[in-house]
Amino acid sequence: MALFDMPLDDLRSYLPERHEPDDFDAFWKRTLDEAAQLAQDGPATEYRPYDGGLSTVEVYDVTFSGWGGHPVAAWLIVPKGAPGPVPCVVQYIGYGGGRGLPHDHLVWPAGGRAAFIMDTRGQGAAGRNSAGATPDPVGGGNPQAPGFMTRGILDPATYYYRRVFTDAVRAVDAAAAHPAVDAARICVAGGSQGGGIATAVAGLRPDIAAALVDVPFLQHFRRALTLTDQDPYQEIVRFLATQRGAQEQVLRTLSYMDGLNFAARATAPALYSAALMDTTCAPSTVFAAYNHWAGEEKEITVYPWNGHEGGSTERRPEQLRWLRDRVA
Amino acid sequence: MALFDMPLDDLRSYLPERHEPDDFDAFWKRTLDEAAQLAQDGPATEYRPYDGGLSTVEVYDVTFSGWGGHPVAAWLIVPKGAPGPVPCVVQYIGYGGGRGLPHDHLVWPAGGRAAFIMDTRGQGAAGRNSAGATPDPVGGGNPQAPGFMTRGILDPATYYYRRVFTDAVRAVDAAAAHPAVDAARICVAGGSQGGGIATAVAGLRPDIAAALVDVPFLQHFRRALTLTDQDPYQEIVRFLATQRGAQEQVLRTLSYMDGLNFAARATAPALYSAALMDTTCAPSTVFAAYNHWAGEEKEITVYPWNGHEGGSTERRPEQLRWLRDRVA
Amino acid sequence: MALFDMPLDDLRSYLPERHEPDDFDAFWKRTLDEAAQLAQDGPATEYRPYDGGLSTVEVYDVTFSGWGGHPVAAWLIVPKGAPGPVPCVVQYIGYGGGRGLPHDHLVWPAGGRAAFIMDTRGQGAAGRNSAGATPDPVGGGNPQAPGFMTRGILDPATYYYRRVFTDAVRAVDAAAAHPAVDAARICVAGGSQGGGIATAVAGLRPDIAAALVDVPFLQHFRRALTLTDQDPYQEIVRFLATQRGAQEQVLRTLSYMDGLNFAARATAPALYSAALMDTTCAPSTVFAAYNHWAGEEKEITVYPWNGHEGGSTERRPEQLRWLRDRVA
Amino acid sequence: MALFDMPLDDLRSYLPERHEPDDFDAFWKRTLDEAAQLAQDGPATEYRPYDGGLSTVEVYDVTFSGWGGHPVAAWLIVPKGAPGPVPCVVQYIGYGGGRGLPHDHLVWPAGGRAAFIMDTRGQGAAGRNSAGATPDPVGGGNPQAPGFMTRGILDPATYYYRRVFTDAVRAVDAAAAHPAVDAARICVAGGSQGGGIATAVAGLRPDIAAALVDVPFLQHFRRALTLTDQDPYQEIVRFLATQRGAQEQVLRTLSYMDGLNFAARATAPALYSAALMDTTCAPSTVFAAYNHWAGEEKEITVYPWNGHEGGSTERRPEQLRWLRDRVA
Amino acid sequence: MALFDMPLDDLRSYLPERHEPDDFDAFWKRTLDEAAQLAQDGPATEYRPYDGGLSTVEVYDVTFSGWGGHPVAAWLIVPKGAPGPVPCVVQYIGYGGGRGLPHDHLVWPAGGRAAFIMDTRGQGAAGRNSAGATPDPVGGGNPQAPGFMTRGILDPATYYYRRVFTDAVRAVDAAAAHPAVDAARICVAGGSQGGGIATAVAGLRPDIAAALVDVPFLQHFRRALTLTDQDPYQEIVRFLATQRGAQEQVLRTLSYMDGLNFAARATAPALYSAALMDTTCAPSTVFAAYNHWAGEEKEITVYPWNGHEGGSTERRPEQLRWLRDRVA
Amino acid sequence: MALFDMPLDDLRSYLPERHEPDDFDAFWKRTLDEAAQLAQDGPATEYRPYDGGLSTVEVYDVTFSGWGGHPVAAWLIVPKGAPGPVPCVVQYIGYGGGRGLPHDHLVWPAGGRAAFIMDTRGQGAAGRNSAGATPDPVGGGNPQAPGFMTRGILDPATYYYRRVFTDAVRAVDAAAAHPAVDAARICVAGGSQGGGIATAVAGLRPDIAAALVDVPFLQHFRRALTLTDQDPYQEIVRFLATQRGAQEQVLRTLSYMDGLNFAARATAPALYSAALMDTTCAPSTVFAAYNHWAGEEKEITVYPWNGHEGGSTERRPEQLRWLRDRVA
Repeated sequence: MALFDMPLDDLRSYLPERHEPDDFDAFWKRTLDEAAQLAQDGPATEYRPYDGGLSTVEVYDVTFSGWGGHPVAAWLIVPKGAPGPVPCVVQYIGYGGGRGLPHDHLVWPAGGRAAFIMDTRGQGAAGRNSAGATPDPVGGGNPQAPGFMTRGILDPATYYYRRVFTDAVRAVDAAAAHPAVDAARICVAGGSQGGGIATAVAGLRPDIAAALVDVPFLQHFRRALTLTDQDPYQEIVRFLATQRGAQEQVLRTLSYMDGLNFAARATAPALYSAALMDTTCAPSTVFAAYNHWAGEEKEITVYPWNGHEGGSTERRPEQLRWLRDRVA
Repeated sequence: MALFDMPLDDLRSYLPERHEPDDFDAFWKRTLDEAAQLAQDGPATEYRPYDGGLSTVEVYDVTFSGWGGHPVAAWLIVPKGAPGPVPCVVQYIGYGGGRGLPHDHLVWPAGGRAAFIMDTRGQGAAGRNSAGATPDPVGGGNPQAPGFMTRGILDPATYYYRRVFTDAVRAVDAAAAHPAVDAARICVAGGSQGGGIATAVAGLRPDIAAALVDVPFLQHFRRALTLTDQDPYQEIVRFLATQRGAQEQVLRTLSYMDGLNFAARATAPALYSAALMDTTCAPSTVFAAYNHWAGEEKEITVYPWNGHEGGSTERRPEQLRWLRDRVA
Repeated sequence: MALFDMPLDDLRSYLPERHEPDDFDAFWKRTLDEAAQLAQDGPATEYRPYDGGLSTVEVYDVTFSGWGGHPVAAWLIVPKGAPGPVPCVVQYIGYGGGRGLPHDHLVWPAGGRAAFIMDTRGQGAAGRNSAGATPDPVGGGNPQAPGFMTRGILDPATYYYRRVFTDAVRAVDAAAAHPAVDAARICVAGGSQGGGIATAVAGLRPDIAAALVDVPFLQHFRRALTLTDQDPYQEIVRFLATQRGAQEQVLRTLSYMDGLNFAARATAPALYSAALMDTTCAPSTVFAAYNHWAGEEKEITVYPWNGHEGGSTERRPEQLRWLRDRVA
Repeated sequence: MALFDMPLDDLRSYLPERHEPDDFDAFWKRTLDEAAQLAQDGPATEYRPYDGGLSTVEVYDVTFSGWGGHPVAAWLIVPKGAPGPVPCVVQYIGYGGGRGLPHDHLVWPAGGRAAFIMDTRGQGAAGRNSAGATPDPVGGGNPQAPGFMTRGILDPATYYYRRVFTDAVRAVDAAAAHPAVDAARICVAGGSQGGGIATAVAGLRPDIAAALVDVPFLQHFRRALTLTDQDPYQEIVRFLATQRGAQEQVLRTLSYMDGLNFAARATAPALYSAALMDTTCAPSTVFAAYNHWAGEEKEITVYPWNGHEGGSTERRPEQLRWLRDRVA
Repeated sequence: MALFDMPLDDLRSYLPERHEPDDFDAFWKRTLDEAAQLAQDGPATEYRPYDGGLSTVEVYDVTFSGWGGHPVAAWLIVPKGAPGPVPCVVQYIGYGGGRGLPHDHLVWPAGGRAAFIMDTRGQGAAGRNSAGATPDPVGGGNPQAPGFMTRGILDPATYYYRRVFTDAVRAVDAAAAHPAVDAARICVAGGSQGGGIATAVAGLRPDIAAALVDVPFLQHFRRALTLTDQDPYQEIVRFLATQRGAQEQVLRTLSYMDGLNFAARATAPALYSAALMDTTCAPSTVFAAYNHWAGEEKEITVYPWNGHEGGSTERRPEQLRWLRDRVA
Repeated sequence: MALFDMPLDDLRSYLPERHEPDDFDAFWKRTLDEAAQLAQDGPATEYRPYDGGLSTVEVYDVTFSGWGGHPVAAWLIVPKGAPGPVPCVVQYIGYGGGRGLPHDHLVWPAGGRAAFIMDTRGQGAAGRNSAGATPDPVGGGNPQAPGFMTRGILDPATYYYRRVFTDAVRAVDAAAAHPAVDAARICVAGGSQGGGIATAVAGLRPDIAAALVDVPFLQHFRRALTLTDQDPYQEIVRFLATQRGAQEQVLRTLSYMDGLNFAARATAPALYSAALMDTTCAPSTVFAAYNHWAGEEKEITVYPWNGHEGGSTERRPEQLRWLRDRVA
């Protein structure tokens, strides 16, 4: 891959203007309050034991109440034999994939932490990806491009990621509610879409203990849409190419969802990574979020020769050690 | 393109076994009755005059009540100056596209017929396709592959095409209800997905005067899924590759939607076309439907050197002349 | 698609130097005079009625005398029942396609105008395109890359587009000569190659009433050849890559054909469109022509999220309304 | 590559029916007689010395009179210092390429033979190929797909390969006429298109001393058009896909040009090669010609693991040794 | 994907002839004896504790003596707190990848088993794959295609996989030698290349307790080389396409390495999987091995809609449960 | 192709900083001395006559002692009948190819010079390339990406190109040692990798008479790795993407191999070529070497419309004439 974005020195200081609607906080407060109320009124979170042939962890097949009171699936995986509640990592999944199997998510438990793996509604049926188990019962108020990026995109109230981010905040509560989990030591984590969701949660939940954000998606949409030819950002471009004239509405909706606005509200310690040859989530969009991140304790690892795979599994020991010093 | 399917002689006599659930007719009767009831109870069909700079036709921007009482958009285009009600062609659109603009649909009016162009819910925002104006408000009861082929596919009750076919039957009523249209002379027409929808309507509505079906999609799923690598059939394969074990449920749902079962009920005169190098809608899947078509008056044009474009615009004079002799 | 060309603000003022040979006007005068003389000496334009099943228009299968006195095919489509001669749009076709069928060209007649659709000699047999009916009997004075871009390119006298542009000027005469057409109200129109041809005609015929030019091809060759990897401009690059040393001759020939030089002579009102993600006809090459257009009454629509499809059918209502105000 | 054609054992005995028009011989006699007459009446073949920095060979830049009396370029390369006239290999070029430079053709001279390299009219300007120097001044009587395969294809009289094959026969005369060449020991040679042309010459000229035919193109069109997706055969498919209904005319024209009909008339000793993974010139089309070859002394080398490159340069020592024993 | 191989019913009984050299057993006995001797004479296996931030497992960075006494890297991961030696899964890696990090291999330990992950010499530096840490110091006795498939392929003594399979047998010893591992309960496992290696070990080591083989590579070479166009089998085809004439030598070498010959000697219980749309390791090559497997206790899972990903992580719970019943 | 690198005017003066290790000269002196000693101690160079059916040249199949005393294959081709020793061109091959056959290399002999064609160890078995006959017996001290670019790349002592450049210097000696060759008139030549090797030899051997360097590879690595997406430079990027953290070691190794450092030591007259659309060996990397070339007599030909094929065979007459004036 050629280098195609800004030089690293410029990335380090890249702090673009954010586009934030006046009612950003009100919009999200109302959204989260409604979901909390629905959860309170609805069925309690279920934690069903799951036998996957694993013996050193307890695994629960979880269903909790997400946006609209819709049931959302998750895995809760707890290392066996801990003397009391353990810290927990709430993990969000990359675009297209579902929660898969607990066997995909054994790193945090092997590190002595519970892992709570949230399914991304609607996703997980796309071929070559992990399976999901959570429908998105809402079809959206507009025609859409294949995929999820433009479902309901003409209005922040109907946009797909409003529902996903709400689920993600609710997931933290569902993790915290389990007795094996120490609610005071919950981190959020994810790569790509998962990193974008983790960013949103970090901006919406001041009680998060730390955030692990790798090559995050859903950041700095205005730049991302015109910088490369890569999906999934290009789903939105295809939408705009067909639904000519929808640009203002779409950009307005995205301003409620842009990671830059969540990062600017996020105060937890954060460990980021970016890759300089990443054409899916270009490094300038990642640094834009990182540089806007409000928390003072933050660090970013740069992979100069990688694409969107970034650090891949090599993130894990780095993250485990970083967490060990902060959220023991 | 190489020839990849059966030789033409075998195609002409290819009559594969159909997989039809026992309650096929009951399922569809219930479905259509519910939709009719919702339409009756809901707002009347709207026909709003549209100014697209055209002077020899009257154009109406139509909204009618589709499945679930959802509003569905359409164009009604009527040649000006006819002495009385004219015959009408109800046209359905290929996969991915929306109703576009009336300027895309001037052939039938230039032939002296009204054209009623139904939007396909959810579609029409995919880039390089015509724009749609109709959302599909239903997200479906399962995770889905990008696109529409697997939305709600685990249950015939929630499947996307149940809604589309119901919209399509309702479209005939919406066309028939306009005073400029002669309800006794309504034909259905379409290519690819549009041809699949037209087939469904012809199987569900015995009062259709004729059907024009070009290289139809949504026929003979069991064969189509394993014959080529082409979308959109492959959306279902990608779904099955991720949602391992869903095969029986998926095939059951598809048995309610397979064009072969509609063709076996269709009695209207029909003019088909197939293309021997069509890897999207392989000729054996088209002939399977054509050979099962119950109506005795039927004809098929074969394009030996074409892919999915089939006869393209060259279908139009052939269809107009064929119609002139039958639905004058 | 990434944005790859100049920012829109720069495009609006981009006025590159033109490369124009001294005898540009003499070359074209001589060329057109010869063709006019051959037409006068040869057989009269034929207008043969064509039955395509259409009833609200009269359709003529036209043959007129083009460059070299060669027969060129066209369709003339006239709305029935007009009280007198109507305005006419002479339409040119995009690269690779032929005149197709009248059924492809019903928009202008539905808007109350005659349409005269000129076949592009040699083209229309390329797969996935509309069919042509006009040979180019001249093979050219040099080896050529597949396609038409380098046929005879070593000399302006033998270059393919000399013949095409001459045919296109003659098409205006052939349209004007029909009694149903009002010769004083002839517009030229086209997208891509069609837009390039329309530009040439507008620069060669001061009596044109208006020009509709969408994402035109054949503009600003020197920039276009090195800006993207897209055909058909790249046919010329492939030629130059093999016929090393032909650069000067080729650029000289192209200077007689470059849309910039025609635009600088065109005085008719013009309605343009450009697309910012168009890698086939990059926006800077379109704006270069638009900014050089000599006529004072001009307008350009910009599609920020589209590729070479530009506004697609959405151009039609805009063009019909624009025409209605100018060439009623 | 997968094996996609018949098993080798079946290939060895594959002798498909030939489609040959009644006037095949008359057509070619007339064609060749006309060309011979034009050559006699026109300017004599020119042999201009060429300085390419080579010292062990004499190189001539040749122009001879081809079909229609058109000038055709060639190289004649003669090893220096031979005691008398030497045998000569007349070589034809693969599709898309031109005669290139003498430096591309030094094998036969290094083997003690003269080489006469015929340019293929019109070709040699396609990028990544060798340059040509011969225009095809005839454009053809029909629209054509990019390339040369469909130029004039609706009539054998106007078809491109009628001109090329005639040039090729005339090339033998032009080679034979040079005093350094022994006219009784002229072989024809070529790979791909070059092999197809050599086959045609061997069928039209009983005085050829031997033929070297590698992975020949232009053989057994009816099968070749539907067996793979590869150009250049697919140019014809694209033509037929657009010019629907031209099939009979096209197949009739091709029956005058099919290598099977030339092979059935060829009596010279022949050395063939075929490659089992060749999707451009599928092995069954090569074996069909080889098995029809009338000469009794024939041999074929099979490359089981190669595509269209076949034996590549490894053909040369085999051919030189084979020739040494036969045309010393 | 289309179905491209035999129907499932035929696969189930597909038992092709094996090509086995007379000295197959002698060759491997000599090879393994030499390696055992070198290991005995060389430095002892090293087990260095590794801190990857994991707390429920002990991780060792292992170096053992492989073919030629070369150092080979591995991970040994043991669940903490087991009361005595545990069963162990020796895992081999897919083509191109290295042993990666222990964080990639936590499933078996979470199931209560030790995992021994062998690096594949030379591999693990290919982009988008896991990193390796083991060089292959031997370059091979012939030119080679990029990759590892043809390194030293002209002679079984120098072939790359002779070294890899020997490493793999030695890996079992290195695992067995650690006090935390129960040497009587060692299973081998792997997918794709890993499955091929596991097959070889199962054929060479009668003391293996069980084998888990997913979509194995390196099976039934003669068919695999000509059935699809997919790497890595095609590396060998590219070699043969250039090194014409090497076919017999290459097939002879491969007969010492073909999984069919190892399977025919393997007596351990085996759990296989195959995927019907797998173009990399076509199902007939997998079934050929499975059907030849000598052990009577065997089972195969078929994924009808998957490509080479097969069952992906969904293999893990099935394998864990299958192992639980057999190698508790 | 788009132009993607610097404008030609900037290229002409582009003189980037070189990264050169302090012991560059010592490293290479030691390396070459060792190889010379091994050659002296080992078997003499063999020149075996080869019968390829050629009669105007003498061909020898050569084996000489390369790096590590390894046997390296070559062709020596001498024009017959020269009165005494002739000048010689030592030619190196492009990436992936081997020495092929003498029939591929007849230009220099036809120009009256001997040609010595060195095989590139390990290469020549890659499909669609010429065959090689020389193994690289060394596998390297690290895992490697497929290909040769990263074999042993972690240490200059083990790097693949250390061996190749040493072979290449020894090839000059092997050519010079033959009685038909005039050792005082030896030129080096090559395109792409061959040009990179020729540059290295020219920097290491002050007695070279001239250098012909076309679109050379292996120049200015730091820029080349991030400028385009093309192999073979990208093999190194893929290595770095997997072997994260190896950057410093890799760049250090490459600093011993970078053509810029050899060019800065090369004093022979040089004829270069570069192509402006060459994405494999970008023109700025070629000009960087050319501008650093120490010899004062140098010339560069620029191909503005070509990719990596550059001038192709058209280089040959230009080179022959340039050589004629300098190394007669």
